Amino acid sequence: MEKLEVGLNGCAFPMPCAIVGVEVNDRPNYLTIAWLTMVNSKPPYLGIALGKTRYTNQGIRENGSFSVNIPSSNMVEVTDYCGVVSGDKFDKAQKFTTFYGKLKTAPMIKECPYNLECRLIETVELPSNQFFIGEIVAGYADEQYLTNGVPDLKKIDPFVLSMAHARYFGIGEYLGKAWDIGKKCTAKKK
Amino acid sequence: MEKLEVGLNGCAFPMPCAIVGVEVNDRPNYLTIAWLTMVNSKPPYLGIALGKTRYTNQGIRENGSFSVNIPSSNMVEVTDYCGVVSGDKFDKAQKFTTFYGKLKTAPMIKECPYNLECRLIETVELPSNQFFIGEIVAGYADEQYLTNGVPDLKKIDPFVLSMAHARYFGIGEYLGKAWDIGKKCTAKKK
Repeated sequence: MEKLEVGLNGCAFPMPCAIVGVEVNDRPNYLTIAWLTMVNSKPPYLGIALGKTRYTNQGIRENGSFSVNIPSSNMVEVTDYCGVVSGDKFDKAQKFTTFYGKLKTAPMIKECPYNLECRLIETVELPSNQFFIGEIVAGYADEQYLTNGVPDLKKIDPFVLSMAHARYFGIGEYLGKAWDIGKKCTAKKK
Repeated sequence: MEKLEVGLNGCAFPMPCAIVGVEVNDRPNYLTIAWLTMVNSKPPYLGIALGKTRYTNQGIRENGSFSVNIPSSNMVEVTDYCGVVSGDKFDKAQKFTTFYGKLKTAPMIKECPYNLECRLIETVELPSNQFFIGEIVAGYADEQYLTNGVPDLKKIDPFVLSMAHARYFGIGEYLGKAWDIGKKCTAKKK
């Protein structure tokens, strides 16, 4: 079958849903995003892309810090909500219990099973967005979401966004061990 | 319950598995990554983070282009394989059928249901990694993976990585419509 060219409005790969926490005008504010990725391994850096006009960006600039909170699939409604209204007009922090970690200026959501606290390292200016790169200074989780002391994706039960059709999906079946199941494959040596 | 501080070795949010295609020394090479995200909406920019010493980086620098190919869950073994061996030693391109699009220097994988072709815009130098930002110039998909002309995540059947426990997972159940199901929530006006 021949490949067809498809439009560029919305990508169809799974994007992790997360809620960014910042302090703006001395109050916690939360914004849902799905544009985030690890960008550096040593030390661990995480990058988040936000539209330039977002209320949240102001808080990142003011404090040089932000948090990334991973919601469970049973939080899908409130997560969606935090992506559709602005912190400029609504007090979204009232939907959650806020806690603070080492940085004191990166509010985190207690109801989210897994939280990462980041110190801003660099801001990449792009045409319509800002890409904030932060060093992860601490991670937090409730004990019930750990296996052998490590946050367990299946217990956290996060969800992903398909931008192309504007849909959320949960995490599915276990497919195999990473950096391992491919070992049975071989390719010709050069 | 109190939050516990957890280690930073491997994050526990779902990371999309993708295979990056580049031309290195006039031959296609493929590398599996899970550190990618959209970073700009207008125009559409995608960012990928690679360890500095990767063979693939050389190809991105030489040609100013790369592709991002989304494998289905039935390709999990070969996808894992392309993340564990280097293109410097092995001819990974023999595992796939390569095709080219507009840029001519961004090889893509026919067996992957969804392909994005990117022109390099900017390289962000980080301590251990390089973050390559590319403009998506075209997207491709086989007709069987489209719904109303748009790539359909459930048909593509991609998979995600949990770094924390080094595991791959498929996509699970449909949870709701994005930018919509949160409308029933409300927060106090400021």
